[in-house]
Amino acid sequence: MAAGSIRYLTQKLAQEIDRELMQPEVGGFALEQLMELAGFSVAQVIAKEYAAERYPRVLVCCGPGNNGGDGLVCARHLVHFGYQPSIYYPKRTQRQVFQNLVKQCENLAIPVLDANVRTAEKQADVIVDAVFGFSFSGSVREPFVDVLRMFCETKRPIVAVDIPSGWDVEQGCTQLGADTFQPDILVSLTAPKLGARTFRGRAHYLGGRFIPPEMDKRYDLNIPKYHGTDQCVRLTADSVESS
Amino acid sequence: MAAGSIRYLTQKLAQEIDRELMQPEVGGFALEQLMELAGFSVAQVIAKEYAAERYPRVLVCCGPGNNGGDGLVCARHLVHFGYQPSIYYPKRTQRQVFQNLVKQCENLAIPVLDANVRTAEKQADVIVDAVFGFSFSGSVREPFVDVLRMFCETKRPIVAVDIPSGWDVEQGCTQLGADTFQPDILVSLTAPKLGARTFRGRAHYLGGRFIPPEMDKRYDLNIPKYHGTDQCVRLTADSVESS
Repeated sequence: MAAGSIRYLTQKLAQEIDRELMQPEVGGFALEQLMELAGFSVAQVIAKEYAAERYPRVLVCCGPGNNGGDGLVCARHLVHFGYQPSIYYPKRTQRQVFQNLVKQCENLAIPVLDANVRTAEKQADVIVDAVFGFSFSGSVREPFVDVLRMFCETKRPIVAVDIPSGWDVEQGCTQLGADTFQPDILVSLTAPKLGARTFRGRAHYLGGRFIPPEMDKRYDLNIPKYHGTDQCVRLTADSVESS
Repeated sequence: MAAGSIRYLTQKLAQEIDRELMQPEVGGFALEQLMELAGFSVAQVIAKEYAAERYPRVLVCCGPGNNGGDGLVCARHLVHFGYQPSIYYPKRTQRQVFQNLVKQCENLAIPVLDANVRTAEKQADVIVDAVFGFSFSGSVREPFVDVLRMFCETKRPIVAVDIPSGWDVEQGCTQLGADTFQPDILVSLTAPKLGARTFRGRAHYLGGRFIPPEMDKRYDLNIPKYHGTDQCVRLTADSVESS
């Protein structure tokens, strides 16, 4: 690893950092706060990369876990930024945090769908993959098998949240096929995961501007400098690990 | 009120909107989310108005309630924006939400003081008044009597969060004196309160970009348009109620 280059995390380290951020006696963050800032950063990337005038309709595909929560937050901010998002959220969790996020979206008249993702895809200008995050392992089940297939087949640009769904978090995109796609944009959260080294899309961003410098140093993360009040930063050759 | 001008809220309406935003079956927001976005917007105003190179040291004075919570969030974001904030927080609440916010600040090595606000003032370049918010009524008690006196006496620019502390929320600054000051900047949250009409400082901003358009319409708020992904917007003659 070149000196000063950003660290790519193992799945275990990503989980450890996440746990630490939310432990009351350690990081002290509420899940609501971290999802708010993460989802906001994804919405900000979309605003930088896809002008609302040209790409107004954003289909946000949400999985059952925290990655899906980031997607719900992203969709809400997109409304305030002038987009017309819709949400595909077929496996809702019963946890109050997530029910609240859905309520907030419904209050903005965002359609929240639980079927017909193929029809929704046809009416979208951009697609957000907020299906699986850094905790993913094992095999994909329906209805997400079909969602991943849609990601592979769509002509629309895809923005993947944290790690493209279906990728092995550490091995990444080992082979393109019926269930592995390359997104146009990847937004890694807190720090990229090892699998992100196989990203071959157009732009790689980092979001989640909440890591304390002490934690950055202790885990040797080498988080690059964000600009101004931006909640996202584009990773360039300078900030990306040489491989 | 001129057509299209922003609405100035009574204390009662401000409380009603706040309650509605956080009711699970209505707005569905968690306090953590609203404080995160509000505090972020205040930090963004500071970044726009006081460059970190010239005004690095920000003293954030926090009261015991939610206004103080906005201040704690603001201080945290300021660190990420390159400032060196310190916090004066003499009356901490025991609620977990607030303890968490303090923990997050301590993890960034922000000094959290509970005494000697006068000494802290001498070492500050900008001061944030996050002492009392829109729920304030009645009389001020120590240690905040002295804090308000410091606000009146300081030569440093003050950024007031939501409503300058000590002002009557509806009557505003009825007379300048030993306990009433004019801040340099006012950041109204969600919508300005009636008292903000007596603001005579340099710039008036609005923060809290989370009001659903339906709510805006129902309460005739006439929230002005925010730009890009900004979480704050400067109120101009066009967007301010003619009086």
